[in-house]
Amino acid sequence: MDKFEGYKCSICGEEYLSGQVTYTCPRDGGNLDVVLNYEEIARKYQPGDIRNRSTASIWRYLPLLPVQDPGGEDTPLRNVGWTPVYDLKPLAHKAGLDSLWVKDESRNPTASFKDRASAMIVARTLNLARTNSIVPTIVTASTGNAGAALAGMAAAVGQKAVIFAPKTAPPAKVAQLLVFGARVLLVDGTYDDAFDLSIQASNAFGWYCRNTGYNPFTLEGKKTAAFEIWEWYSNLIGTPETHNRDKQLTIFVSVGDGNIISGIHKGFKDLMAIGWIEKIPRIIGVQAEGSAAIFNTFHAENEEIKAVSAVTIADSISVDFPRDGVRAVRAARETGGTYLKVTDQQILDAISELGKCGIFAEPAGAASYAGFLAANREGLLDEGGVNLVINTGSGLKDVKAAMQSVTAAPIIEPTLDGVKKYL
Amino acid sequence: MDKFEGYKCSICGEEYLSGQVTYTCPRDGGNLDVVLNYEEIARKYQPGDIRNRSTASIWRYLPLLPVQDPGGEDTPLRNVGWTPVYDLKPLAHKAGLDSLWVKDESRNPTASFKDRASAMIVARTLNLARTNSIVPTIVTASTGNAGAALAGMAAAVGQKAVIFAPKTAPPAKVAQLLVFGARVLLVDGTYDDAFDLSIQASNAFGWYCRNTGYNPFTLEGKKTAAFEIWEWYSNLIGTPETHNRDKQLTIFVSVGDGNIISGIHKGFKDLMAIGWIEKIPRIIGVQAEGSAAIFNTFHAENEEIKAVSAVTIADSISVDFPRDGVRAVRAARETGGTYLKVTDQQILDAISELGKCGIFAEPAGAASYAGFLAANREGLLDEGGVNLVINTGSGLKDVKAAMQSVTAAPIIEPTLDGVKKYL
Repeated sequence: MDKFEGYKCSICGEEYLSGQVTYTCPRDGGNLDVVLNYEEIARKYQPGDIRNRSTASIWRYLPLLPVQDPGGEDTPLRNVGWTPVYDLKPLAHKAGLDSLWVKDESRNPTASFKDRASAMIVARTLNLARTNSIVPTIVTASTGNAGAALAGMAAAVGQKAVIFAPKTAPPAKVAQLLVFGARVLLVDGTYDDAFDLSIQASNAFGWYCRNTGYNPFTLEGKKTAAFEIWEWYSNLIGTPETHNRDKQLTIFVSVGDGNIISGIHKGFKDLMAIGWIEKIPRIIGVQAEGSAAIFNTFHAENEEIKAVSAVTIADSISVDFPRDGVRAVRAARETGGTYLKVTDQQILDAISELGKCGIFAEPAGAASYAGFLAANREGLLDEGGVNLVINTGSGLKDVKAAMQSVTAAPIIEPTLDGVKKYL
Repeated sequence: MDKFEGYKCSICGEEYLSGQVTYTCPRDGGNLDVVLNYEEIARKYQPGDIRNRSTASIWRYLPLLPVQDPGGEDTPLRNVGWTPVYDLKPLAHKAGLDSLWVKDESRNPTASFKDRASAMIVARTLNLARTNSIVPTIVTASTGNAGAALAGMAAAVGQKAVIFAPKTAPPAKVAQLLVFGARVLLVDGTYDDAFDLSIQASNAFGWYCRNTGYNPFTLEGKKTAAFEIWEWYSNLIGTPETHNRDKQLTIFVSVGDGNIISGIHKGFKDLMAIGWIEKIPRIIGVQAEGSAAIFNTFHAENEEIKAVSAVTIADSISVDFPRDGVRAVRAARETGGTYLKVTDQQILDAISELGKCGIFAEPAGAASYAGFLAANREGLLDEGGVNLVINTGSGLKDVKAAMQSVTAAPIIEPTLDGVKKYL
């Protein structure tokens, strides 16, 4: 594990060795960035060493990750990532543009982007277990995709998971956690209460805490999406010698707590650090109008995150106080991107438009496409640029929202005349 | 399309050229098997020609399919199949056996096995359109996975789909069809009424009818699972020179209308016909106790399918009159297999057991694992054999059933003491 050097605080810049800290900066509580030995990686590997690998999952990027091979062959843990990118030409043309693509994260084992982070956390604990022979229980606060991803990934390799959810969590989402065999504790309080309690419990019982915007390894899992985008985009535009370097790649990411957009940014920064890319794509964050804390900070041109009272249909990005807001602001600011906000109605319309291309997105996933449309209306997109939206999760996770995005089907009498009446 | 010769009736054996018929046998209404030019295929291809292909989908088997490349690059249509096979060693050992694997069909684009059939139907219409320049509307009767698969695959390439569903269909399932942009007509009647009406409408309006157990191409899509199992098993046991040929491969398939088990059987028969395998694996059909029409026929030792009044929690295999019963009986009879039935409680327990390995199955998918346990109880399995169960669909498709498979989570006060009480 020599390539994993330690951490650097995203707020004060203080650096720590890998054994010195576990979660956030002891000085100011800032989120920690994992620091790799970039010189060593650049010396040992060429892009071709990755691209020629047959491994069709996040584990093809092991040389760029702060973990060793976690094992778990022939389990869902080995099948995370390497998600398809679909061509949405009809929607691009409708918008008067050449190119629109969607990276479909609903194709992950538990049907969301969060499998990337949870797989990395599970790998980290398996690595730690090699040193001290104890595989710790993993705990997280969640009501949704993150909890399902942790429960599923832990189950895949027989690890124990504990999930703290507010007691108001939808029974259907709790059922998924329980089916995966996680111990689920419903907290008589808010999500914030569950978040705090999971950290207390982790300290008290020696559990490893996966919480988003707290554990530095979630970002390391999420950054693998950037690596996949890098490979996809390289194939799309051809070799450095032949491709048109003026083609702007813009990536649209829906943003709640800010960890996914920060992870994608980190992935591209890692690729810069080892000299494999010359420029980071433009990253545009998309928030729901009713949950726009990071949007507010971005446009206030500072880094002070102020809580909001979040209300949006897109539950996966409905967040009062984003736990990874500062890095999320920077992801757009440092790449020439911006933040946009979209209404719930625009999100519902986006579900329907993506559906007509065969992609069933949850509201948070469709929000990125709604953001693409907003960016186009604001004149931010070049006709010849390449645009990529990320669908972060499956529409099957929130069928209730899907039902709001469509008009009801007619009831007909069981005769041909009945059919003809409606055609 | 020279390799596609025509059809052979599964009942009377009458043969037809490819242009002569479209759906069932004009003589007796029997289901038609697609006949390929096996000599030509065997002459042109070696197993290595398939195994060395990089295409990670059903389309790697184009040389063995009765369609030409349908196009649709970079859409969900190209991402059907090539589903992972997971090692369930803990469950195998619990059962006192060496080996148990699950092929996870929930990883298909619309999260079920049915994508294989729908992709083939869409390919067939795109092929036909090359001849007569008209891409027909595709129609099917369905309330569940088949409808979702057709709607999704058609949407992927901009084709029109019409779904007839009984008006009692769950609104959530109807929502998925509508999101994919299908025209959904809710029939004031039963599923059988919807089935008959879809055929009438297909004749009246020139639509292409996908109905299961009616259109011969669904089987051609489903047989691709057998090809994938063949490749997987070859890799598992090693080369013919080194592997232990006494290892019995047994495949467990949940059975409703009988089309999936018939499709898997057809795939292996095709491989036999071109000389790529010497023996077909044992295929065991698993039915829900409350929907066991094919089980009954199998054990009555004839081929007469008698309707039942189906009642089971596993809605995907809840069928009064199986439309592909005869071939389904033969799939077990001709391979040394059998039919087993399992209770709803056994199905619920199976959901929970698979969940603890990180696999979230719908009831019909978990039924195959319940069948594996039943087979083991009946002494049908050798300790050293290789057992494979097929999870036909995602548990996210039926969260209500999932909730019945687990015990509720406790509600705790938001303190460490609250946590301790429940540990």
